Amino acid sequence: MTIPALNPEGGYRRLRIDIAYDGTRYAGWAIQPDFPTVQAEVEAALSRIARTHIGTVVAGRTDAGVHASGQVIHADIPPKPKFNRYHPLQREWDLPNFHYRLNQILPEDIRILKLDFAPENFHARFGASARHYQYRIADNNVIVPPLKRLNVATWYRPLDPDLMNEASAQLLGEHDFAAFCKFRRAATTIRTLTQFEWSRDEDGYLIADLAADAFCYNMVRNLVGAAVCVGESRFPVEWIVKVLAGKARVSDSYVFPPRGLTLTRVDFPPTGQLATQVVRAMARRGEEG
Amino acid sequence: MTIPALNPEGGYRRLRIDIAYDGTRYAGWAIQPDFPTVQAEVEAALSRIARTHIGTVVAGRTDAGVHASGQVIHADIPPKPKFNRYHPLQREWDLPNFHYRLNQILPEDIRILKLDFAPENFHARFGASARHYQYRIADNNVIVPPLKRLNVATWYRPLDPDLMNEASAQLLGEHDFAAFCKFRRAATTIRTLTQFEWSRDEDGYLIADLAADAFCYNMVRNLVGAAVCVGESRFPVEWIVKVLAGKARVSDSYVFPPRGLTLTRVDFPPTGQLATQVVRAMARRGEEG
Repeated sequence: MTIPALNPEGGYRRLRIDIAYDGTRYAGWAIQPDFPTVQAEVEAALSRIARTHIGTVVAGRTDAGVHASGQVIHADIPPKPKFNRYHPLQREWDLPNFHYRLNQILPEDIRILKLDFAPENFHARFGASARHYQYRIADNNVIVPPLKRLNVATWYRPLDPDLMNEASAQLLGEHDFAAFCKFRRAATTIRTLTQFEWSRDEDGYLIADLAADAFCYNMVRNLVGAAVCVGESRFPVEWIVKVLAGKARVSDSYVFPPRGLTLTRVDFPPTGQLATQVVRAMARRGEEG
Repeated sequence: MTIPALNPEGGYRRLRIDIAYDGTRYAGWAIQPDFPTVQAEVEAALSRIARTHIGTVVAGRTDAGVHASGQVIHADIPPKPKFNRYHPLQREWDLPNFHYRLNQILPEDIRILKLDFAPENFHARFGASARHYQYRIADNNVIVPPLKRLNVATWYRPLDPDLMNEASAQLLGEHDFAAFCKFRRAATTIRTLTQFEWSRDEDGYLIADLAADAFCYNMVRNLVGAAVCVGESRFPVEWIVKVLAGKARVSDSYVFPPRGLTLTRVDFPPTGQLATQVVRAMARRGEEG
């Protein structure tokens, strides 16, 4: 079953592209005037190779300063490459070469990890069934070695991961996460949080692993801030339940900075179920992804 | 036994300062006009807190773009802090505060790890008995994730760590390393290489661990390049022995880029033997460290 609205038209072919980036110097994924964005860099590189404008659709629209180690996008390219006098015999797309040249053009803080033709009905945004994020905190005022600083946020107080796990577990499941989302008109804030776990890595940093069908604007950084409020014993575990139930942002929680946040993985259903997932996602989230 | 030439005068007190830095945007440790250097940043921060010019002496003078995770320096500060109207009661140096303020002033790619008064006869350059470096290579054209890119050099061919270990072992011991050093007038190139070992880390990157009493200018990056020549099977293991014996730089070896190189540790003898080490180092290396 081919769903027309989901697939490229005019013989265009859809690419699935897996990307990693250091978000430090970007105003986020989404293109905007006057600020450098990851999308602008990637579309410029794609367009240069395809010799025509190529747009992209992203699975997880990361905010300014947020990183990705497993972002997924799609892009539709023309049926055949345009005639290129440097490669006069090239009649078909040569994807390994396309991939190599993209990384040659892109700055070193953006890397294309994989690039291939996408299966039918593949849609990076509406087809994704889950997004996975990781948040990294150096607590107790420890000094972060400069070579590890890019994806770590610092906190001055010591944090208790057991308390944080207790609090985080209260938020699992389907809820209206309005209390943890920056308001956007016409956007639902009902989400299903399937993972929110804290552990310490080999460097002693606190790591949060989170997964949901999708996250609202600023949601991970709000969830992390609320868990920290409990982890530093400022509020008891029950406080986080009350905040969730209140469905309104509270002024005495924290929003953690983007530098500690990385989009690590996007899940897609098996190829045969891509269309079903899209229909479900579009019905559920309406205008918003 | 206090050696006058080694110790600060006029009641000045010597600090031992352990530092880490991401060397990417610096023209090396050593101060120079017109380019940003780590030494310039550190001396500016020290001088601002001490309210008088403070110079520094470094254990390992890293080149442009080279990193440090365990650099050691010393700096001599006046016997007492200058009167400061914001802290009118401060009569003695408060080192934890000094340390904290340094990191507040310094850019985030330079961090002070430790700061304390140094023992008698401590000299960061002449007292150091060994320098340890690590070099990191992503071989076989693998794509380096942007968040790990700062301290990894890439190489397009696959490398065989067993061959590289065989070659590197040939260089251990005391030799004239002129073949691996950039020429500098009046500088000896006789060094004792005590470690030069290759392994793969959990990311699959090739790691070289090196240690010597001291390294000449560009020496680690030349050693790594020569080992790579063997590791990619361009030359046999015996080739590296001939290069060493030739005592002259060869044009068909590689010099690897600074980004893969990190000064990881500096060793000092036990406090009671500091003076002996200094006398030995000064006799050995003459003008040069």
